[in-house]
Amino acid sequence: MPLGKAVIGQSGGPTAVINRSLIGFIKEATKEGFDEVLGARHGIAGMLNQDFVDLSKLSESQLYGIGKAPSAALGSVRKKPTENDIEELISIFKKNDIRNFFYIGGNDSAETAHLINQGAMKIGYEMKSFHIPKTIDNDLLETDHTPGYGSAARFVAHAFQGDDAEMRSLKGIKINILMGRHAGWLTAASTLGKATEDDGPHLVYLPEKPFIIEEFKKDVKDVYDSLGRCVVAVSEGIQGQDGEYFLQTYAKQTGSNLAGKKDSHGNIQLSGSGLLGDTLAEIVSKHIETARVRADTFGYLQRSFLADISEVDAEEAERVGKHAVVSSRNQNSGSIVLKRQLSEKYLCDVGVVQLNKVAKHTKNMPANFLDQNKPYVTNDFFEYAMPLTGGIEPKTQIFV
Amino acid sequence: MPLGKAVIGQSGGPTAVINRSLIGFIKEATKEGFDEVLGARHGIAGMLNQDFVDLSKLSESQLYGIGKAPSAALGSVRKKPTENDIEELISIFKKNDIRNFFYIGGNDSAETAHLINQGAMKIGYEMKSFHIPKTIDNDLLETDHTPGYGSAARFVAHAFQGDDAEMRSLKGIKINILMGRHAGWLTAASTLGKATEDDGPHLVYLPEKPFIIEEFKKDVKDVYDSLGRCVVAVSEGIQGQDGEYFLQTYAKQTGSNLAGKKDSHGNIQLSGSGLLGDTLAEIVSKHIETARVRADTFGYLQRSFLADISEVDAEEAERVGKHAVVSSRNQNSGSIVLKRQLSEKYLCDVGVVQLNKVAKHTKNMPANFLDQNKPYVTNDFFEYAMPLTGGIEPKTQIFV
Repeated sequence: MPLGKAVIGQSGGPTAVINRSLIGFIKEATKEGFDEVLGARHGIAGMLNQDFVDLSKLSESQLYGIGKAPSAALGSVRKKPTENDIEELISIFKKNDIRNFFYIGGNDSAETAHLINQGAMKIGYEMKSFHIPKTIDNDLLETDHTPGYGSAARFVAHAFQGDDAEMRSLKGIKINILMGRHAGWLTAASTLGKATEDDGPHLVYLPEKPFIIEEFKKDVKDVYDSLGRCVVAVSEGIQGQDGEYFLQTYAKQTGSNLAGKKDSHGNIQLSGSGLLGDTLAEIVSKHIETARVRADTFGYLQRSFLADISEVDAEEAERVGKHAVVSSRNQNSGSIVLKRQLSEKYLCDVGVVQLNKVAKHTKNMPANFLDQNKPYVTNDFFEYAMPLTGGIEPKTQIFV
Repeated sequence: MPLGKAVIGQSGGPTAVINRSLIGFIKEATKEGFDEVLGARHGIAGMLNQDFVDLSKLSESQLYGIGKAPSAALGSVRKKPTENDIEELISIFKKNDIRNFFYIGGNDSAETAHLINQGAMKIGYEMKSFHIPKTIDNDLLETDHTPGYGSAARFVAHAFQGDDAEMRSLKGIKINILMGRHAGWLTAASTLGKATEDDGPHLVYLPEKPFIIEEFKKDVKDVYDSLGRCVVAVSEGIQGQDGEYFLQTYAKQTGSNLAGKKDSHGNIQLSGSGLLGDTLAEIVSKHIETARVRADTFGYLQRSFLADISEVDAEEAERVGKHAVVSSRNQNSGSIVLKRQLSEKYLCDVGVVQLNKVAKHTKNMPANFLDQNKPYVTNDFFEYAMPLTGGIEPKTQIFV
């Protein structure tokens, strides 16, 4: 197969280190001998419009700047390609002699890479297709964890250290809503800055367990009664026993009208709104009338805050970008994964797996990471997640 | 006057560097020869309960840890002392031979220090009373700026850099709500990370100017039509032309029931709720139906995020804490201020002014910091505020 040109795109919600994967790719790809190294603006949307930029002419300082910038430098897109799109993409690749497709994203992006791989084989066009993992949600199969998660986890852990200190300082109940539609990884990271049992968060509600209002009210009251404060981490994706998102269930039960809060697909809008936090705060306020209750929704800050990045995460993000190019030398397709080594000191190797093993699936938190007796996580989770953050310094608490 | 004992308390909303003022005070006070150096838990509430801790026996590493911790290490309080409280406080001071009162806080804390000073003089008890400034709101008179503001401003500027990148990456309209009930200083800081005119925030709404819905809708649409995205910074304290908080006015106009969102004093709750952002997002969504509109309320993160502190701010916070002790050598009372020097390089000196010049007042942004033609700030503001943040590195934007 001729080497041809290479194209890369970025897809889905951004992370703080997604551009490190991009520059990792660029550094390796520009040495590889491809006829051209192209970037597509806004992922496959840009590829369909042949909206390409030349990535081989960037200066060292430009690369450095891109690597330090948050969010997707090439622009991102949320687009599931139709069969027609795939055909058109491949015909555009053919026309431009693009024989190497790289896509940075989550499981939807792995699916796109998989469909392109299959589509090209179907018509006998020789090309390679690789998925480079990223997501703050950490919900991809096969890889030990996803680039982007460590930095988001670090941000969340630091934010909860501040909030715990605030609730010690001015007593009250604080409910924070974290991203994670299907899996609780990021919400669980709220515990990583704790130095003692007494530190917040005291309660952690994840999508992996049904959210039951009466239990929630009781849990919060118990902590508040015993400590005089309570810090709560709640995943935006919490669901009732009926398997529906909590707000949807709650709206039905109370007859509230949440119509204005639905997105264009009719789904309850989880991000970019304070509704879930405000609703939970209202429930708690009514239950514990004397308490000062506040809710914050961390929102987009979690995935685009550039000033508190995990260096471990950033380095790994760059490494998976490079490894996609390396893997394309002797494989036709694949999804890059991080493989944790059995060693005293934290160490991850990179590898590659088949695209269909990653495409579309979601990795929930395993049972041994969830406390069976209370809404909380286990020490196994702590040991798994802490190294990814680059380490969280415990805060000092002496007087209150 | 005998030297006697010294007591310090922390009051009001915390900042990321309020404990640097505390350790600055401790370092200087323990050398001063006071009979004891006491801290009161939860400000004057703790003093009234004689809930004191000994601050003279802390190890170097404890001091270091306290200085790096967010929020008020001694605990804070929101309490306006009554006449009775003042009498009781002074009688407790008398009983314990406390002759030096230090209070870290905003203008309410300056007022408390002023009342204690006056109360002591009235009964002829010889003691000293000093206010050490802190507030993320930057709204104290006399001082060039307040410790705590620089770090909060830094956090906000970095957060907007991330959000601007996100809105470039996945096009849309983003509305962020910032703290500041009366003055727009922190909201204005959202502009400090901009590298070009095109970067967000594109619109900045401050309490210093009336907020008019129709103008807001038009402003957002104009930017969105021209750039395909719009990032907006809104102060939680925005008011209609009637001088009432926007949500209050809006509730009247639309007949919405905001009763559940009022605090115990009947005030609309501005912090710890996503209501203002969600309301503005809904207004914009209805006006520009095709746009992806999101709102985030930065909430308590702004004042307690320990991982992105301005070193300039932290150093100044420590310095004003020290200077309060130094000032007590030859003055009976005062509020510590930062005085910017006329020099090429940013340089601030410390000084002391009369308590009644700072007590109760609020410093709004001056006219020359506000753009007269659009909801935005001027270059004068930029030059004033940037050094306080310790410097914000511009982000790289090449492709989108």
